[in-house]
Amino acid sequence: MTSTKKEVCIAVIGAGGVGSVFVEQLAWLAKNEKTTRLKLCYIADIDRALYHDDYSELDIGSALETLQKQGRDPPSLDKIIDYLSGAPHKTIVADNTSSQAIASAYPSFLRRGISIITPNKKAFSGDYKLWREIFDATTPIGPFVYHESSVGAGMPIISTINDLVNTGDEVTRIEGVFSGTLSVLFNSFAPTSGNGGTWSAEAVKAKDLGYTEPDPRDDLNGLDVARKITILGRLAGLSIESPTAFPVQSLIPQELEGIPNASEFLKRLPEFDSVMEEHKKVAEEAGKVIRYIGSVDVTTGQAKVGLELFEPTHPIAMLQGSDNIISFYTKRYGKMPLTIRGAGAGGQVTAMGVLGDLLKIISQM
Amino acid sequence: MTSTKKEVCIAVIGAGGVGSVFVEQLAWLAKNEKTTRLKLCYIADIDRALYHDDYSELDIGSALETLQKQGRDPPSLDKIIDYLSGAPHKTIVADNTSSQAIASAYPSFLRRGISIITPNKKAFSGDYKLWREIFDATTPIGPFVYHESSVGAGMPIISTINDLVNTGDEVTRIEGVFSGTLSVLFNSFAPTSGNGGTWSAEAVKAKDLGYTEPDPRDDLNGLDVARKITILGRLAGLSIESPTAFPVQSLIPQELEGIPNASEFLKRLPEFDSVMEEHKKVAEEAGKVIRYIGSVDVTTGQAKVGLELFEPTHPIAMLQGSDNIISFYTKRYGKMPLTIRGAGAGGQVTAMGVLGDLLKIISQM
Repeated sequence: MTSTKKEVCIAVIGAGGVGSVFVEQLAWLAKNEKTTRLKLCYIADIDRALYHDDYSELDIGSALETLQKQGRDPPSLDKIIDYLSGAPHKTIVADNTSSQAIASAYPSFLRRGISIITPNKKAFSGDYKLWREIFDATTPIGPFVYHESSVGAGMPIISTINDLVNTGDEVTRIEGVFSGTLSVLFNSFAPTSGNGGTWSAEAVKAKDLGYTEPDPRDDLNGLDVARKITILGRLAGLSIESPTAFPVQSLIPQELEGIPNASEFLKRLPEFDSVMEEHKKVAEEAGKVIRYIGSVDVTTGQAKVGLELFEPTHPIAMLQGSDNIISFYTKRYGKMPLTIRGAGAGGQVTAMGVLGDLLKIISQM
Repeated sequence: MTSTKKEVCIAVIGAGGVGSVFVEQLAWLAKNEKTTRLKLCYIADIDRALYHDDYSELDIGSALETLQKQGRDPPSLDKIIDYLSGAPHKTIVADNTSSQAIASAYPSFLRRGISIITPNKKAFSGDYKLWREIFDATTPIGPFVYHESSVGAGMPIISTINDLVNTGDEVTRIEGVFSGTLSVLFNSFAPTSGNGGTWSAEAVKAKDLGYTEPDPRDDLNGLDVARKITILGRLAGLSIESPTAFPVQSLIPQELEGIPNASEFLKRLPEFDSVMEEHKKVAEEAGKVIRYIGSVDVTTGQAKVGLELFEPTHPIAMLQGSDNIISFYTKRYGKMPLTIRGAGAGGQVTAMGVLGDLLKIISQM
């Protein structure tokens, strides 16, 4: 049956936490995929690239190691697009970076017939113009863009909202906890029973356990959550201009915004524990707990990200560990939403979402 | 652009609670679908069928009404298959019945190139031999079988387990509340706080509110849940022989199994309230609540359906209304499962799952 397999050229950009796991999962899939021969024809990290001018196949199993040893300087984005559009097969780029530059080039990839799969939020949550350019460059018979892991990692969030919209349901509201970091922080700072720790101590603990970005302020500023809300709001039909076009409550005290590094920031954070303690007290007095959520009311077009109070029995209040939870309120689902909960970050589940996107594309090729 | 649209012939079998809503949703989709012209070429309920020998298109908007007024005697399944396989376009059958006879004919439809979309559990949860015949008759380029609404209605349950398996994750355990009827019954009989009603009174109330099958014993015997567990267990890789091949705890007292009708059954149910009260008491003494769940331990191959005790803070215990909840424990998700919660029954959400399946097929045609 080998001779009847269609062939697809895969280009992987990014070989970090997600990218390296993606390559491992791709090696598994290439062995198990029955209809399509998945040929790795390009792999790159920020410093190196590995590819053959004649598009001959790279061995997926050893690609990461060979990239480190024999990678050449990566070509410019224009050159990568030229190279890939000359491939003898249909081509899919897995952008496993969080690069704005690569995201901004998606329309150029697509216009040359190259499909995109990616967990990179930048393209879908930046300027609305880029969003439009990207989706204007796709067609129902390809090239395709899939970005399941841009919200909630491998959980079926993007596919679910697309299915709701494409079958004619009316999404009225989306809300949830979209940050694993802020989930773990609030679940331990303001648990539904017991006292919880102080804010700054929990922040340090979360960093030490590897839950935060290298600089925790990249979680605390709320921009990551705002990006996810932007994506979901747009998929629900809103023309949200950018992730800063609606209220986003930053948890970084103004006085600490200019601090040059993360450790200095964490050292001074206890000075502001009383502010968060006051929030917690107000919640407790109302018999509630405080959580950091993103929401978009699709009917009114209002998006917002920040602190809100919840009954202790609310699914958002009862979240555990670093889980995300995302609820879709729709006309067909009625009063009770469709809710999806689970790990919204991590290399394995993020890469799996990208691999699932790959399967969706090859089924349509 | 009309001339470049591909054309697909849709046959709808069943015009009841799900089927009639499906036809409404199909009318919406036919107006909005950009790449494919969806032509209704056959529609039937149990007594009537509407179709033209020359395959000319039926008006979707008036099809249900015309079926009632002008429908002829429905042809035999063999004749339907003959008719559809002669259509000038690729054909998709939406089986919106719960008929075993139609389910058993899926392999015959598929072998003649006709794709299937359906919420009908029978084909996927009956004899394992039928399951094998069905999937042996599909290929990655069609004909296709999609059955999202066979578990959890329109919620992304089937697509999620397929994505997990197809991307190489290892599903280790699936558990959940799979019956809207039993969900509402246990949530009111044994709430996480307060006392709850008596078992028989809650059963009568659930029937009066329209939550149960016409004969509530069809919910209480557990077979519907066992069918869903069979489907998920098989998709996770187990060769479960049938929905009666593993322990299923029936909530129908043995003495009432032979009662001829539902109202007589409900009249005598209070005689057995003490049995359920005892279950509730045991749970309470352990600080827990009682729920009716289905589970399959994929590692050991053990499936089971019946009563289990849960901490009051467990998501299964905290379920509300008639919601379903389904959790997938997998290697990549680790300790905390991927959980999906929402309405698992109802015409709108069930039909929407079938319509989503239709979209999946036409994207691959």
